[in-house]
Amino acid sequence: MVKPTYFVAGESGQWQVEATRAIIGKGLDVAPRLSVMDTDQVILPDSAAWVLRGTAGSARYTTRVELDQLGERQPPLGRATACLAVLIPIRKSELWWSLAQDERRAIIQERSAHFQIGMDYLPAVARRLYHSRDLGEPFDFLTWFEFAEESAPQFEAMLFRLRATEEWRFVEREVEIRLRIWQHG
Amino acid sequence: MVKPTYFVAGESGQWQVEATRAIIGKGLDVAPRLSVMDTDQVILPDSAAWVLRGTAGSARYTTRVELDQLGERQPPLGRATACLAVLIPIRKSELWWSLAQDERRAIIQERSAHFQIGMDYLPAVARRLYHSRDLGEPFDFLTWFEFAEESAPQFEAMLFRLRATEEWRFVEREVEIRLRIWQHG
Repeated sequence: MVKPTYFVAGESGQWQVEATRAIIGKGLDVAPRLSVMDTDQVILPDSAAWVLRGTAGSARYTTRVELDQLGERQPPLGRATACLAVLIPIRKSELWWSLAQDERRAIIQERSAHFQIGMDYLPAVARRLYHSRDLGEPFDFLTWFEFAEESAPQFEAMLFRLRATEEWRFVEREVEIRLRIWQHG
Repeated sequence: MVKPTYFVAGESGQWQVEATRAIIGKGLDVAPRLSVMDTDQVILPDSAAWVLRGTAGSARYTTRVELDQLGERQPPLGRATACLAVLIPIRKSELWWSLAQDERRAIIQERSAHFQIGMDYLPAVARRLYHSRDLGEPFDFLTWFEFAEESAPQFEAMLFRLRATEEWRFVEREVEIRLRIWQHG
């Protein structure tokens, strides 16, 4: 059984929020800290500015060849050197969701090279994708990136390339939450 | 925003339960009636035998060509003649979910002809697929079929063909709930 992960913005949590930016559409309220919790740990504080949920489910577009490449280069989350993180919640348009699987795959991989762009920054930038759409959440995906201070320029370059793709034209809401580790926990 | 549909087995509801069969693995408790409710309508009765939720989300494997074929032949749910329905909750194995998208697609479409089997019984057997896995539910999918009394043999033939496919070897839990309309609601 797959269980959602909770991202809780508020007064406490292992991540310090350095910036909260609305990139496309409506933003999110600003809070000093962010807590990332598994379902079993969740105690929602009264003071939460917002709570987002997502499940790190199975790969929706990735092929076996790509999964194997990822497996070789992908670092785990929680590396001791990874003191920076960025949470990017995204919602795509109804037009996107009305496309067929092969049409979405063509835009993501063949025309937008989403997979290759991510690969180019491994193992520097660790990432995890959480699916939110089926949970009735305000965003479709929550993407989580983790990296060391010295890899920050690489992360920025990756983000710039992703946002320039055809795929990103279907993004109708995007928020960027910049984080720094408060305590390893 | 996508909202889940609720299937509530209990003492009330627009469908009368004629049979509840465990096909693979653990079954579900027997109840006399089934109610199908949208999120906004849901008032869970104290007496519910069980509640299953799923979202009728976007197509995960279907190509544009297939979606267009479906669009031409697929009838709506709720036809006046469709007095029979079958709800089939399914869970697939961890092995299935560890496969890449192209591997799952190959099994579903190329080797198991899942799409073609469904097409062969349209418009007689209307169907809708609800996704449950990301909701942390005990099943991965809820499949709903609706048809007229005279189309029952066609439904049985379809079910027989689906269960004989390679795809079905990955099913580790399957229950069949046979329903008859109680009142059009």
